Amino acid sequence: MTSPSQGYDEFELIARLLRPLAAGAPGALDLADDAALVDVPAGRQLVVTADAIVAGVHFLPDDPPAQIARKLVRVNLSDLAAKGAHPIGLILCAAFPQGVDGAWQEAFVAGLGEDVRGFGVPLLGGDTVATPGPATFSLTALGTVRRGRMIRRAGALPGDQIWVSGTVGDAAFGLHVSTGQAVGLDAAAAEFLRGRYLLPEPRLELGRALPGIAHAAMDVSDGLVGDLGHICETSGVAAVIEAASLPLSVAARAAMAAGVGDGLATVLTGGDDYELLFTAPPTADRRIRGLSERLGLRLSAIGRIIPGVGVEVEGSDGRPLTLRVSGYRHFRA
Amino acid sequence: MTSPSQGYDEFELIARLLRPLAAGAPGALDLADDAALVDVPAGRQLVVTADAIVAGVHFLPDDPPAQIARKLVRVNLSDLAAKGAHPIGLILCAAFPQGVDGAWQEAFVAGLGEDVRGFGVPLLGGDTVATPGPATFSLTALGTVRRGRMIRRAGALPGDQIWVSGTVGDAAFGLHVSTGQAVGLDAAAAEFLRGRYLLPEPRLELGRALPGIAHAAMDVSDGLVGDLGHICETSGVAAVIEAASLPLSVAARAAMAAGVGDGLATVLTGGDDYELLFTAPPTADRRIRGLSERLGLRLSAIGRIIPGVGVEVEGSDGRPLTLRVSGYRHFRA
Repeated sequence: MTSPSQGYDEFELIARLLRPLAAGAPGALDLADDAALVDVPAGRQLVVTADAIVAGVHFLPDDPPAQIARKLVRVNLSDLAAKGAHPIGLILCAAFPQGVDGAWQEAFVAGLGEDVRGFGVPLLGGDTVATPGPATFSLTALGTVRRGRMIRRAGALPGDQIWVSGTVGDAAFGLHVSTGQAVGLDAAAAEFLRGRYLLPEPRLELGRALPGIAHAAMDVSDGLVGDLGHICETSGVAAVIEAASLPLSVAARAAMAAGVGDGLATVLTGGDDYELLFTAPPTADRRIRGLSERLGLRLSAIGRIIPGVGVEVEGSDGRPLTLRVSGYRHFRA
Repeated sequence: MTSPSQGYDEFELIARLLRPLAAGAPGALDLADDAALVDVPAGRQLVVTADAIVAGVHFLPDDPPAQIARKLVRVNLSDLAAKGAHPIGLILCAAFPQGVDGAWQEAFVAGLGEDVRGFGVPLLGGDTVATPGPATFSLTALGTVRRGRMIRRAGALPGDQIWVSGTVGDAAFGLHVSTGQAVGLDAAAAEFLRGRYLLPEPRLELGRALPGIAHAAMDVSDGLVGDLGHICETSGVAAVIEAASLPLSVAARAAMAAGVGDGLATVLTGGDDYELLFTAPPTADRRIRGLSERLGLRLSAIGRIIPGVGVEVEGSDGRPLTLRVSGYRHFRA
């Protein structure tokens, strides 16, 4: 027996905490085998994505463990959403710090379970180990898509409109809130922004509706300009973002007014919103607006794809803005 | 530009080092998308397994980086082999220490590439991040198996013979060599054992031949007794290992003679051999011996499945041996 404060070892963690998360997935074999068995229905293809997060790098040490787990799930589901895929299962590799508190592990797994059940995406397998370093988690998400219908980054065409779901910049301001750098912001706005940072909403329904509409798509995880740059680079095109068209939440506007972060630069280059960014021909405009209404999800045309290289941001006066930074790179300061 | 000693950032690592490892897999999309696209042929099922390794826990800080990468690949392929699956692709999540040496990364990826090419299993995707802690890698391996033919841990039946491929105990003695605890052992034996620890050989051909023959299978990664215990537990049976039947390499015999480790206990409970452990009815005996001949791979009957609970080791006098430890658990000392 283990008291919660002592931490669960590998076998207890699987048997007592993780196994229930595999319920409903016979192919998970109760997490008691070396591998999981997954059926990919005829006429569909498998879509696979993975993300790794490290304490102190991708989340703050005092973030609630349940929300760390849920964010990890959601970040991966967001990638599947961006590809137009339907999620079918998760593989978790968890490195818990030596001497980890059992209550922390329980809370982490509780959060995982909440989203596993909420999104109906079972845990299929993985590995749990101990680390002398910070908590490190990597999650591989499996999804399926109708054959030939996966939406890629490559595929944007000059003349396409650029669309984004929801609102942008919230998570970047939310990170400022989480690190105590948002003085002068009212509590409700601060809490909203922090929530957007801690718990993104994968746009799965939107993603599933986009094959046949979008030419290219990805989710906004490294910042709007940087991520649009990825679409442009793989598609061999350029983009113009119209700053005046960017969908901002009331709270983000309040944050900008209060001088949190770098204003528009934070909106354009901050990451972690996990909204879907996609391009579509102008002829799809009506279908996209209909989709927005049906899903109850704001979808905003924020610019256009043009021939060339790079991403330009156009101010409300029609003149290009200059940005200091463009997305976040790992390994460098 | 980055000088090798400075370390590659996320984008450079992908573009300059990892992308070639995705060659030949159109679904990897040059590692330039959010997800990979994988075809699972009709009549087959997907088999998914994952392993995580941490510097200082699963490998030694001065192990050659190429061999760390290759071992990670092989450990995962070994799991697929144990399930009778054919590997089709890898997803790597790599957390490199902040300030990692670029030459270390290059060597790691070179090793990865060697096995990616050697086993014909492309890199399909993943994530690379920085960590303030030790290098941490997790790999998810995808394979396919004919529908309904995956070999499980559950399935062992009383009356089954227990088989193991190759020789056992080598890697455990090899770990003693690697940590300088193998004095008195001749250099050739030491090198052989260290090689078995650093670079296991996934028994893919054997694994692919086992569906229809084996009732249950897994690979030996936590130690023979512990792993056989897993088969017994999930199958609801017990096992008797005949110590005299254990296949030992000449080098392992030399290590035992030189007093390295704990002799037979090291053979029985040491991990990391990555040989296949399987059970099969006595009627399969001739087919298994034929398989051994065809593959040029030693296959040894080392005991029998009986009704009951647990794993017993029988000495050459027919009396049960007592072991002090039974496998390795994470999170505990």
